[in-house]
Amino acid sequence: MKDYIKQPMDIEKRSFEIIGEEMGENNFSQEELQIVKRVIHTTADFEYKDLIYIRENSIKSALDLLKKGVTIYTDTNMALSGINKRALSNLNCKAECFVSKENVAQIANERNITRSMAAVEQAAEEGIEFFVFGNAPTALFKLKELTLAGKANPKFIVGAPIGFVGAKESKEEIEKLKYIPMITIRGRKGGSAVAASIVNALMYMLTR
Amino acid sequence: MKDYIKQPMDIEKRSFEIIGEEMGENNFSQEELQIVKRVIHTTADFEYKDLIYIRENSIKSALDLLKKGVTIYTDTNMALSGINKRALSNLNCKAECFVSKENVAQIANERNITRSMAAVEQAAEEGIEFFVFGNAPTALFKLKELTLAGKANPKFIVGAPIGFVGAKESKEEIEKLKYIPMITIRGRKGGSAVAASIVNALMYMLTR
Repeated sequence: MKDYIKQPMDIEKRSFEIIGEEMGENNFSQEELQIVKRVIHTTADFEYKDLIYIRENSIKSALDLLKKGVTIYTDTNMALSGINKRALSNLNCKAECFVSKENVAQIANERNITRSMAAVEQAAEEGIEFFVFGNAPTALFKLKELTLAGKANPKFIVGAPIGFVGAKESKEEIEKLKYIPMITIRGRKGGSAVAASIVNALMYMLTR
Repeated sequence: MKDYIKQPMDIEKRSFEIIGEEMGENNFSQEELQIVKRVIHTTADFEYKDLIYIRENSIKSALDLLKKGVTIYTDTNMALSGINKRALSNLNCKAECFVSKENVAQIANERNITRSMAAVEQAAEEGIEFFVFGNAPTALFKLKELTLAGKANPKFIVGAPIGFVGAKESKEEIEKLKYIPMITIRGRKGGSAVAASIVNALMYMLTR
């Protein structure tokens, strides 16, 4: 068996070098590039450099929230588990998957809506400002409704639902809220790992 | 805002129909197709139909293990959180992310190896037979070493490490163990969500 690199940080460093070499020319800023490269690192899929949409000044908005120690909403346990816990803790932030909360299942049952939708309502009620979506289009649609109704106040959104039914449309809809800082993955692709990697890239700008 | 499908099972059903339509002609068996479609459902990436390797009789071997109620090793918390807990419980199986175990961190420190490698050693010692890798090439290399040394006894492997350093090679190496049932994702792609989706597809053959 060939010898292999065994140190995680060495592997990450070399991976980012390879990604940089293969990406070639692009118009990303240095900060944007840290996000784009981390998404490609997570997916081994260079198409993400064309699918990612980083709205102007959104990185700054996200960093301002992280600096003040926010609670981050995630739509799935998988996105939650992909977010680096040490970086979260260093920033005095925390992340919660609202869909797993007990009262959320109850609300969903009572009102015959998806748990994903009930979870967003609960998060909005609790005053969450930092939203991360890696899976559920219905949750992202719901956040738009609540925001337009003045019942939610998102100050930064990662919009990366994945899939064949509603995912693309959910991201198109949320982008119509022109005044909200956001990073989205356009089209069908995305996912919990991608969403988490965007959050991690943002946190590492402050912690590494 | 347009009306949208709100029931998770309806969304999944329609998604699988779309995937079937867009995949076109292929040589997969009905069982294989359930796995391939679920991976594409998880990634929105049709390239997986060309990257997946399902060794002959491996589905049967995996189902036999699931039927007897095994403990499934996962290399990451993310893969663990992607595995359907209700299906696991229905099958009297459980899944554990060994890298998070307390004694694993200690072993890794003492011997200056990655926690991923120490986790595989621990799993092998505990007699684990069903291994799922979505992230760590070093863990997959380690499993091969332990198996050749007669210290591990894998009876089914999901080999889906992702990345730019070692991932592809780790899967090539594990495939050289010709007698072990396995499903791998060749090349750089894979990941925790993909690994979990393969396990879910297998479990659903027995529970749905």
